Amino acid sequence: MAEQTVSKDLEDVKIEDDRVDPWKVECNSLKGIDYDKLIKTFGSSKIDQALIDRIEKITGKPVHPLLRRGIFFSHRDLNIILDLYEKNQPFYLYTGRGPSSESLHMGHLIPFIFTKWLQDTFDVPLIIQLTDDEKFLWKDLTVEESNRLAFENAKDIIACGFNKDKTFIFSDIDYISSSKAFYVQMLKIQKCVNLNQSCKIFGFDETSFIGKISFPAIQAATAFSAAFPQIFNGKTNVPCLIPCAIDQDPYFRLTRDIAPRLNAHKPSLIHSGFIPALQGATTKMSGSVATSSIFLTDTPKQIKTKINKYAFSGGRDTIEEHREKGGDYTVDISYKYLTFFLEDDEELEQIRQDYSSGKLLTGELKQKTIKIIQGIVADHQERRKNVTDEVVKEFMSIRKLAFEY
Amino acid sequence: MAEQTVSKDLEDVKIEDDRVDPWKVECNSLKGIDYDKLIKTFGSSKIDQALIDRIEKITGKPVHPLLRRGIFFSHRDLNIILDLYEKNQPFYLYTGRGPSSESLHMGHLIPFIFTKWLQDTFDVPLIIQLTDDEKFLWKDLTVEESNRLAFENAKDIIACGFNKDKTFIFSDIDYISSSKAFYVQMLKIQKCVNLNQSCKIFGFDETSFIGKISFPAIQAATAFSAAFPQIFNGKTNVPCLIPCAIDQDPYFRLTRDIAPRLNAHKPSLIHSGFIPALQGATTKMSGSVATSSIFLTDTPKQIKTKINKYAFSGGRDTIEEHREKGGDYTVDISYKYLTFFLEDDEELEQIRQDYSSGKLLTGELKQKTIKIIQGIVADHQERRKNVTDEVVKEFMSIRKLAFEY
Repeated sequence: MAEQTVSKDLEDVKIEDDRVDPWKVECNSLKGIDYDKLIKTFGSSKIDQALIDRIEKITGKPVHPLLRRGIFFSHRDLNIILDLYEKNQPFYLYTGRGPSSESLHMGHLIPFIFTKWLQDTFDVPLIIQLTDDEKFLWKDLTVEESNRLAFENAKDIIACGFNKDKTFIFSDIDYISSSKAFYVQMLKIQKCVNLNQSCKIFGFDETSFIGKISFPAIQAATAFSAAFPQIFNGKTNVPCLIPCAIDQDPYFRLTRDIAPRLNAHKPSLIHSGFIPALQGATTKMSGSVATSSIFLTDTPKQIKTKINKYAFSGGRDTIEEHREKGGDYTVDISYKYLTFFLEDDEELEQIRQDYSSGKLLTGELKQKTIKIIQGIVADHQERRKNVTDEVVKEFMSIRKLAFEY
Repeated sequence: MAEQTVSKDLEDVKIEDDRVDPWKVECNSLKGIDYDKLIKTFGSSKIDQALIDRIEKITGKPVHPLLRRGIFFSHRDLNIILDLYEKNQPFYLYTGRGPSSESLHMGHLIPFIFTKWLQDTFDVPLIIQLTDDEKFLWKDLTVEESNRLAFENAKDIIACGFNKDKTFIFSDIDYISSSKAFYVQMLKIQKCVNLNQSCKIFGFDETSFIGKISFPAIQAATAFSAAFPQIFNGKTNVPCLIPCAIDQDPYFRLTRDIAPRLNAHKPSLIHSGFIPALQGATTKMSGSVATSSIFLTDTPKQIKTKINKYAFSGGRDTIEEHREKGGDYTVDISYKYLTFFLEDDEELEQIRQDYSSGKLLTGELKQKTIKIIQGIVADHQERRKNVTDEVVKEFMSIRKLAFEY
């Protein structure tokens, strides 16, 4: 077995703490981010078994594997949303994407797969924000390109299967320049946050463009239904639940902080961790590092090659040693991907046991992962083919969503 | 004569230099701001006789008294605009107002009176920006109130007599939320200016709201015709001349600095000084200090009372001393107001001589000023009556202005 094995080198990397913010995710352990520690640092709450039990009880169905397996692991005030659901009172979902590349990767799918489950389970409206203005400000992209990518990325998002009657997708550039209510909401937020707060929360400094300094108000505005009068039929204070990766939490800590000053509900949150890069869980998949990621446009062959070539393995140096000592699933990227995408709990547990015992070799584990991911990507590509420009325009048209308020 | 006389007290005021920025104008001399010094500090150019002669030559008519008398005293690249005019090539005018109060005062009229003269003389389109978003961010105003004031103030502006076919008036809040081109222009500017520059130019600090930090991009965007595709029939780089009070120069220094990075013309500028407060030329009329200003809503009686009671006088303590030594017109507010509003050059010169010689008493001078200002305000009120909500909507409607490009 010539594959890369557990290395101790990374113990020398001088990352004192995991770094998790909207622009970078890295840590010094191949086991990945210490999510329990992150919950303490961020001051959010762990999703425990009692909360999962409550969700299963009030919805009458099992929770999604991403929740059951602790990939969505943290929350803020999720109980408030469950209370509303129990009382048959309205709330809406809000998630988003920064459209910086033509193609999404597997990591980008996670919040959307889970959000679809939330929408189906709770039967609620959903707002998806595409922050093309953000990507123009942060990346080496023209405004036109960033705006175009928002439209293209919407196709991948729609292919996840959202309910068209209950989902509004918008590009910041297009919606801000169409909606007085949204611009007014932005302004109100921009009058609640001072430079010191923005720099402290987001790490801006003297060299940051002024557009970046004020951008957080745009991501925050979407958490308030007052910014969407047509969508919510004039209801200005519908509570909001935001499923997102936890690196986005700084935006919503800020949003929750200012909500009372806007006489609005604080949004609730449910946070996921990150799908690790092929090279190992010290960082996440990144669209700008092609070999770190499996893209939704990859061919079956590309998927096979990438996993075989790059996926960091918890296997041993030789077959003999592997049979004897077993593999380390806690650092094995192929195994980690299965926790995200293999639906069958029993099969996953069997794989874990067999890999740990040495019964399952790294090559065999990789074959299973390759097959699962090839299937997901192929299905996605098939669904995306049906998402025409017309369909995107329907999702993006400003209209009342189908929901009783 | 019980009126206030030239005081030496102010010499003790510790203003080392005149302060002139978008939020404050003050100086330590009753003669007013040292405009020659300001030109050096700001790095603009003095409007000299040669430039005035050139304007008269190419337009074939005398320049406006506000220009002849040095009230518009400074410029940046005005010659470029005159070159265009000579070659029969297009440019547009851009001026504006921050709608922070119900009623405008006499000082607010100055840029509009002069801009109307520019529009009539050069026969060019004009854009008037009402920065209701700015006033919301800076003042204790709701967004709704600030937006309403923009609409109300537009009536006073329209009453100055602008050509409806060639004038577009907009509120930031309404236009930004209607125009993708404007929001895109804002974003492009927000990606050219960093926090350090914005703080240095405008004096922002850690306590400044993030909306303030990025606002300069909004005032800058209007200097680029690319932000107004419908208005300019798709012409994206029409040169711009900005008539404004010189306290607005920081916005346009910034605008000129970034123009090359946007592949756009630097806007040209023509700057006015300030109409002094009734209490003396150490500061300007301020809408928030009612007794400092004559409002366009004042009655003839209010105007008479304010000037008699508050207008700082260059007269002497007694009639005898006044007859003997003469009055000091360089600090006399009534006289200064005549330089703004009395059209007849010869009459103004006669008043100056008579006041200086002691022939004209302060009370008599004030009567002349009262009569002139009562006339201007009454005429304005008469014209404003005809400016209905419908007329405002026409000026504010997004449409191609009548001009050949």
